[in-house]
Amino acid sequence: MTAGGGRGPAVRPRVAFDLEDPALVRAAWSRLVEPNDDAAYRALAEHGPEHLLREVLAGGGEPRWRVRVPDLDPARDVATVRRFGGRVLVPGDPEWPAQVDGLTRPPVCLWVRGPLPLEPACRRSVALVGSRVMSRYGERVTVDLAAELTRRGFLVVSGAAYGIDAVAHRGALTAGPTVAVLACGVDRWYPPGNADLLDRVVTDGAVVSEIPPGSAPTRWRFLERNRLIAALTLGTVVVEAAWRSGALGTAARAVELGRPVGAVPGPVDAPTSAGCHRLLRDGAACITDADEVVELVGRIGEDLAPERTAPDRPGDRLDPGPRQVLQALPARAAVPAAALARASGLDERAVRRALAVLEVEGLAERHGTGWRRIRVG
Amino acid sequence: MTAGGGRGPAVRPRVAFDLEDPALVRAAWSRLVEPNDDAAYRALAEHGPEHLLREVLAGGGEPRWRVRVPDLDPARDVATVRRFGGRVLVPGDPEWPAQVDGLTRPPVCLWVRGPLPLEPACRRSVALVGSRVMSRYGERVTVDLAAELTRRGFLVVSGAAYGIDAVAHRGALTAGPTVAVLACGVDRWYPPGNADLLDRVVTDGAVVSEIPPGSAPTRWRFLERNRLIAALTLGTVVVEAAWRSGALGTAARAVELGRPVGAVPGPVDAPTSAGCHRLLRDGAACITDADEVVELVGRIGEDLAPERTAPDRPGDRLDPGPRQVLQALPARAAVPAAALARASGLDERAVRRALAVLEVEGLAERHGTGWRRIRVG
Repeated sequence: MTAGGGRGPAVRPRVAFDLEDPALVRAAWSRLVEPNDDAAYRALAEHGPEHLLREVLAGGGEPRWRVRVPDLDPARDVATVRRFGGRVLVPGDPEWPAQVDGLTRPPVCLWVRGPLPLEPACRRSVALVGSRVMSRYGERVTVDLAAELTRRGFLVVSGAAYGIDAVAHRGALTAGPTVAVLACGVDRWYPPGNADLLDRVVTDGAVVSEIPPGSAPTRWRFLERNRLIAALTLGTVVVEAAWRSGALGTAARAVELGRPVGAVPGPVDAPTSAGCHRLLRDGAACITDADEVVELVGRIGEDLAPERTAPDRPGDRLDPGPRQVLQALPARAAVPAAALARASGLDERAVRRALAVLEVEGLAERHGTGWRRIRVG
Repeated sequence: MTAGGGRGPAVRPRVAFDLEDPALVRAAWSRLVEPNDDAAYRALAEHGPEHLLREVLAGGGEPRWRVRVPDLDPARDVATVRRFGGRVLVPGDPEWPAQVDGLTRPPVCLWVRGPLPLEPACRRSVALVGSRVMSRYGERVTVDLAAELTRRGFLVVSGAAYGIDAVAHRGALTAGPTVAVLACGVDRWYPPGNADLLDRVVTDGAVVSEIPPGSAPTRWRFLERNRLIAALTLGTVVVEAAWRSGALGTAARAVELGRPVGAVPGPVDAPTSAGCHRLLRDGAACITDADEVVELVGRIGEDLAPERTAPDRPGDRLDPGPRQVLQALPARAAVPAAALARASGLDERAVRRALAVLEVEGLAERHGTGWRRIRVG
C-alpha cells in the first residue's frame, strides 16, 4: 500500500471507536502523527483518513504511525475538549476555515475552545506576530495596531506567546474578540504566565490547536503552529522580531501560501526590529499603521489606505510661473517687476501676468511701484 | 529659429566676451537661465550653447533669456570663483562628472571649489540626504553611515542643509573628504549657520553648484540642486525625512535617473521617519547599515552585503530526525527510547538511530536504561 517502512503486526487502540465517524478518525490521526510528518499528510491525501487508519491498525504504513496506537482513544480526547466547552472541527463542518486547505499539510482536525466561529471570522483576519523579547516601542505599536484592526472588524490572530503575541491579543481584546493558536492541547494554557490572558481570549474569541488535548508544546509543534497562524489569516504582519525569530517563520509560511506579509520598521540599531528590517529587505510591505494593514490584507479596491496628505503650502496649487515669482518675491521690501524678472529668470511680461494671479490669490500686493509678498497662515 | 516667444531687439552683455570660449559661453548660460527652464535646455541641446547664445544676443529665443543679458559678464563670474580658489567645469573637461549627462536638464557648467576632482570621485559616491528637522536617532545613524561609507572609499555627497545633510558631511569628514552641492553660488556659504562646516568640506573635498556666483538660493533652485545631487551619485539614501521633505524629491530624481534609492527606517510614530517609510512603501531598499548601502550602490557582484548570521543553536545542523528527538529529550530525568518515540512521533528504530547520532555529537547521553540531553554552551 502506502509509503512502506516495513509492515508490522496489527495494533489495537486502547479503546475501540467507530472507524466510520470522520471526527473520531481525524481526532485519532491528530494523535498518531506530528504536524510536520510530510509522508503522513501525503498518504492521508492519497488514501483518505479512514482507509489509511484501517491500514495502520492492520500493521501497514510507516512504523512511527503505529507507535501511539496503543494509547489511542479519540472519543476520550473529544470528551476532554468538550469538558472545557470546546469542540473538534473537521473539513466539511460549517465552521471549518477553508483557508487552511491551501496548506501542503492541512490540519487533520482543529481543536477549538471559545464561542467565536472560525468561519466566517477568519475570512477577515490578520496575523499579528512578533518576538518574545519586545521593546516598549514594539509594545505600544502592537497594542495600537491590534486595537484599531479589531475596531475595524478585523480578527487579530496570534500565538499567545510572551511578548508581541500576548500584546496583540491584549490590544485586540480592548475592542473585540481575538483568536490564539497554540502549539499544545487546548486543555492547557501555554505559556503558563499567559493563563489569565488565554482565559480572556476564550471568553469571546477562540483558542485553536491541531494538537490533541494533553499534548505538550515542542519546538517542532511551535514551527507548525506558525504555519497554521499564517494559513488561518489573510496576511501576516510582524511587528517586532529579532534577527532570528519564530515570527519570521510565520511570515515565510504566509509567503509560501501566497498571502501578503508586512513588517513594522523600527530603529535600525534596535535588535528587536532586526527581523522586521530583514523582512522589508526581502520584499515585505512596510507597515506604519492600521490603514496600511487593512490595505495589505483587504480585498483589492475595497480597503485602500487613504493617501496621506500634508497641509498645502501657499502657492502649491499655482502654475509654475506664478509659483516661481511668488518664491522670488520678498516679504518685506517691495521690488519692481523688472527686478523680479531678473531674480526669477522669467521675462517681465510673464512676471506681470504672474503678479496679477498672485494678487487675485491674496498672495502678493502692490506697494508703491513695487510688489511684495503677503504672508499666509 | 528656436522656441519663439517673439523676437526682440538685439541685446548686449555688460562686458563683451569671447563667444568662442566654451567655458565663458556656458558660464553665460548659467547666468541667463534657471536650471528648471525646460525650453532652454531643449534649445541648448538642439542648437548648441554658442549658436543659441548668438541668437539670443541678436534678439532671438525666449524673451526671458534676454532679461539678464545687460548684466552679463561671464569672465567676471569665472574670476570671482577663481578668487575663491575655484574653477568652472564644462563637458569635455577631464574632471567633468559624466554621470550628470543623463539628466534631461544637464547643468550647462559646474562651479566648483575645493581640491577633490569630481571625476573620478563621483564614480564611487552615494547621496546621503534627509530633512532639516532631525531626531537624535537620525543624527546618530547618519554620522555612523557617513563615516563608515567614507572609510570604505565611498564619497558622501549631500546638500549642506541643516539637519541630516550637515550631519552626513560631518560624519564623512571624520574619515575623508565629502562633497556639498549648493543651491546658490559657491562664493557664499549657505545656510550661514553651516559656514564652518562648508569651510571644512572645501578643505579636502569640494563644494559644487550649477548656479553662478553671487546668486541667492531660491526654492526652485533647491529643487534643481536635489536633481544634481541625485545625478552626481550612484544612488541616494534618505536617512530621515518628514512626510513632506525635499529629500524625497532627491530620491524621486534618483529613481528617474535609474539610480537605486534606499531609505533608513525608524519608529513608525516618529514624524521624522514618515518620509522614509513612504519611500519604503514605494519600493526603496530598506537600509540598516553601511553594508547595505554599499550593496545598494556597489557594482553587482562586487559589493554584496555579508549575510548576517546568528550563533547556531545546538542541533541546527542535525538532520530532521535527530533534531526532533533532541527537542523531545528532557534535560533532567532520563527517558527510555520508547517514550521518546511516543513524544516525538517517530518510530523506536528511528529514535535509536537518532540517539546514536546525538551521542556522537555530544548532545545526548545514556543514563541507566534511558537517555537525557546534555546542555551545550
